[in-house]
Amino acid sequence: MVVLRREIGDVLRGARQGQGRTLREVSSAARVSLGYLSEVERGQKEASSELLSSICTALSIPMSVVLREVSDRVAIAEGVAIPDTIPADFISQFGRDEDLAAV
Amino acid sequence: MVVLRREIGDVLRGARQGQGRTLREVSSAARVSLGYLSEVERGQKEASSELLSSICTALSIPMSVVLREVSDRVAIAEGVAIPDTIPADFISQFGRDEDLAAV
Repeated sequence: MVVLRREIGDVLRGARQGQGRTLREVSSAARVSLGYLSEVERGQKEASSELLSSICTALSIPMSVVLREVSDRVAIAEGVAIPDTIPADFISQFGRDEDLAAV
Repeated sequence: MVVLRREIGDVLRGARQGQGRTLREVSSAARVSLGYLSEVERGQKEASSELLSSICTALSIPMSVVLREVSDRVAIAEGVAIPDTIPADFISQFGRDEDLAAV
């Protein structure tokens, strides 16, 4: 089974290591504890939306780029080939209209 | 500021409504409480990796497709144009080598 937090952790760790930075440097820049960042990178803790945003900012990577990388990895793990253009039937399922009433 | 759980909630709600299904139906299929699903859809609660997976299964949508839609929305909110081919400098940052040692 694909566990999202593990994929997010792998991508964040890869980005940090690719920049040659330590856990200490990035956790300090993101204003999160070193232990928290370490647990997130190892997929042991769910990153809250706010702290994931802080970590992405500390890494100078748009959160959308991290999410795109994560979605690509999950697609591979799921055996899903995601086309560059999402098929119309998926788009219709998502109902892009922002005016949809809640519930 | 882009709040990830709100984008995830919007995508999940759009998918459910696009299928013409109720909160009750999907929460039952996903084995989560109706209140939990409602809070996740409204961006008021972070979905854990496991429960997000259950909700995607209940919606018969691969989690990667949901994440791709979320990343596209976040990219628009961030003003980031994500090319279909991610630039080499981003790829190098992510260090796709799976053998990287954990710090």
